[in-house]
Amino acid sequence: MRILILGGDGYLGWPQAIYLSQKGHEVAVFDNLARRQFDLKHGLDSLVPIYSMQRRVERWAEITGKAITRFHGDTVDYPSLSRAFQEFQPEAVVHFAEQRAAPYSMIDREHAVFTQHNNVIGTLNVCYAIKDYAPAAHLVKLGTMGEYGTPNIDIEEGFIEIHHKGRSDVLPFPKQPGSFYHLSKVHDSHNIMFCCRIWGMKSTDLNQGVVYGADTYETALDPALATRFDYDQVYGTALNRFCIQAAIGHPLTVYGSGGQTRGYINIKDTVRCIELAIQSPPAAGEFRVFNQITEWFSVKDLAERVQRVGQRLGLDVMLDSIRNPRVESENHHYNVVHTKLLDLGLQPHLLDEAEIEHMIKLALRYQDQIDRRQVMPTVNWRETENSITPEAALPQAALA
Amino acid sequence: MRILILGGDGYLGWPQAIYLSQKGHEVAVFDNLARRQFDLKHGLDSLVPIYSMQRRVERWAEITGKAITRFHGDTVDYPSLSRAFQEFQPEAVVHFAEQRAAPYSMIDREHAVFTQHNNVIGTLNVCYAIKDYAPAAHLVKLGTMGEYGTPNIDIEEGFIEIHHKGRSDVLPFPKQPGSFYHLSKVHDSHNIMFCCRIWGMKSTDLNQGVVYGADTYETALDPALATRFDYDQVYGTALNRFCIQAAIGHPLTVYGSGGQTRGYINIKDTVRCIELAIQSPPAAGEFRVFNQITEWFSVKDLAERVQRVGQRLGLDVMLDSIRNPRVESENHHYNVVHTKLLDLGLQPHLLDEAEIEHMIKLALRYQDQIDRRQVMPTVNWRETENSITPEAALPQAALA
Repeated sequence: MRILILGGDGYLGWPQAIYLSQKGHEVAVFDNLARRQFDLKHGLDSLVPIYSMQRRVERWAEITGKAITRFHGDTVDYPSLSRAFQEFQPEAVVHFAEQRAAPYSMIDREHAVFTQHNNVIGTLNVCYAIKDYAPAAHLVKLGTMGEYGTPNIDIEEGFIEIHHKGRSDVLPFPKQPGSFYHLSKVHDSHNIMFCCRIWGMKSTDLNQGVVYGADTYETALDPALATRFDYDQVYGTALNRFCIQAAIGHPLTVYGSGGQTRGYINIKDTVRCIELAIQSPPAAGEFRVFNQITEWFSVKDLAERVQRVGQRLGLDVMLDSIRNPRVESENHHYNVVHTKLLDLGLQPHLLDEAEIEHMIKLALRYQDQIDRRQVMPTVNWRETENSITPEAALPQAALA
Repeated sequence: MRILILGGDGYLGWPQAIYLSQKGHEVAVFDNLARRQFDLKHGLDSLVPIYSMQRRVERWAEITGKAITRFHGDTVDYPSLSRAFQEFQPEAVVHFAEQRAAPYSMIDREHAVFTQHNNVIGTLNVCYAIKDYAPAAHLVKLGTMGEYGTPNIDIEEGFIEIHHKGRSDVLPFPKQPGSFYHLSKVHDSHNIMFCCRIWGMKSTDLNQGVVYGADTYETALDPALATRFDYDQVYGTALNRFCIQAAIGHPLTVYGSGGQTRGYINIKDTVRCIELAIQSPPAAGEFRVFNQITEWFSVKDLAERVQRVGQRLGLDVMLDSIRNPRVESENHHYNVVHTKLLDLGLQPHLLDEAEIEHMIKLALRYQDQIDRRQVMPTVNWRETENSITPEAALPQAALA
């Protein structure tokens, strides 16, 4: 099948591309390299060195004999997006091409506006490109579990049957997103659902949990195929960041009481979930939602797991509760229905000590390259103007 | 109270401004004159002649001795928006400054993108301007009943108590908007709700029905104070357009079977509702939703009412069912809770034959200026590219 991966240079997009290529699909990647530009601008870097997009694709071809088509373009630039659709004629479109960090979207007005413009308009363009150039293509959209927030009822997969005053209907699950980034994904979901309804587009919305893990079977084949590993306060997700902190002797930064519970998924399962969605597409006009998680943990539970593994490795791992920079409940109900991907055949890689050990050891291997200033949060949900320059937020002593 | 009306030059914004000014409030209007520019570009015009923004404000001062402050600016241009907030220091902000037509948003990709960019980014900017310059101000946001769509359960005022698997919560009412315009309003609602939660902003979201009526007590005081009256396929709402069609002997264009039922409200009640919301502001951090309608009708029912009044006036009024250009259910449940504004004191002007007669007579008075080509829909929800140049859609014979 011809599969176009939008955002195919990113943490998940690149492993997805080579996973599907390995499975025999014809794959193209489309990216504006925005994530690399952010690093350049702020002096950040992936823990694991990553190779240029060109080199990645070349190396993949050298190792496997499989070609991946490259497009440089931007979803908000319709001519470049259209060209990719016209030239590649995708049968499935996997959409990772979004600004993906909640803290980034909360830095200040400009970053909030950038996030919502980039994600909402970019996704609108993707829908129009499908309608204009590949109307039979299946849009596989990466959403996030964060769209739901933490309601006091079980979270269903996208829709909920509501009984009310003697009548009933199956309606979109009410959303309570917790950042301008998460809001942008809710907007996208609504827009895509509408396109399915009016144009007969078919789409799978994957509400993904927090992804952890440093590699997939394919990225581990060669250093040039590695995917990025982020540990900073903006892009580093909880478990990845805790492993880094454990490796460098920094207390694990638990926001508030740490009762915040979220769904998680191993990066190896992410790539498989998307394959499963592609293999069993929805009908024309159908908008379906899968909750793409395999288990859930509280932040505190996660930190304690990392602490246990770290201590077994001889590391001195402390937990530190810091003032929660986010506005979120730290004590809430969390029970998520996530059967649809299991029904399609997903066999989860659940989080075990071996996985945490693998990540901590990775961090130990690259510890000289870790920028300690990046692991503390400086972006605060309650402020209008935040700085992501850590010097401004941390006392000089902490920079040692 | 100092009240800033964003979009204060529009069909509703202007009557709102002079209504609140008449009530003794200190009023400023902020507008980019986008609606007038649309007319210029497409050769359209309001049925009722409207005066320049400058002349309106001058005439209001001449008649009443009350000053209205004018700002020319655009919500997507943060410097101009900030300046208005800094100079005027509003205590309440009434937000009408959005692209407000569903058909406009469905013309093609460019119009969809314009609508969502203008409305979502503009409203984000309004929230940041409040946070930055007027954190105690009450944001009164005009939403639309179209955010809800037509679920098979009663529509509550913004939130619904859901009982599910032995637990319960009060959650945002699920939304099923029916155009890229309506979607933009849903996005705004989610964004504003979040700003209330994280920043302690206070906001009232008014989910308004279709507004009808040509004037308020204030706009009727003088020709220079008139508000616009639209009858075209893009901006003309159902009842207004039917009255025009009746006056010029054009069949009333009922989309499909005409069973589509919507909430309606008289323009005189709109201005009062907003006053009621301002008089009883929500608490800091509260996001509340009122359904701003007074009654509901099916399209067919509305057309038949106009037909009856038209025939009484000696006009030959036919009903014509035309292929529905929208994607919407023509036979659905519709029962809307709308008690909150009544509880605050709203005394509705319900639709009666006198109101319809008034509108038909207005249309008869200005019938020489009616562009007959504008009353037929050319924008189709199922198409990617639509033209709003009526010549392209209608046979030449119809242009006579």
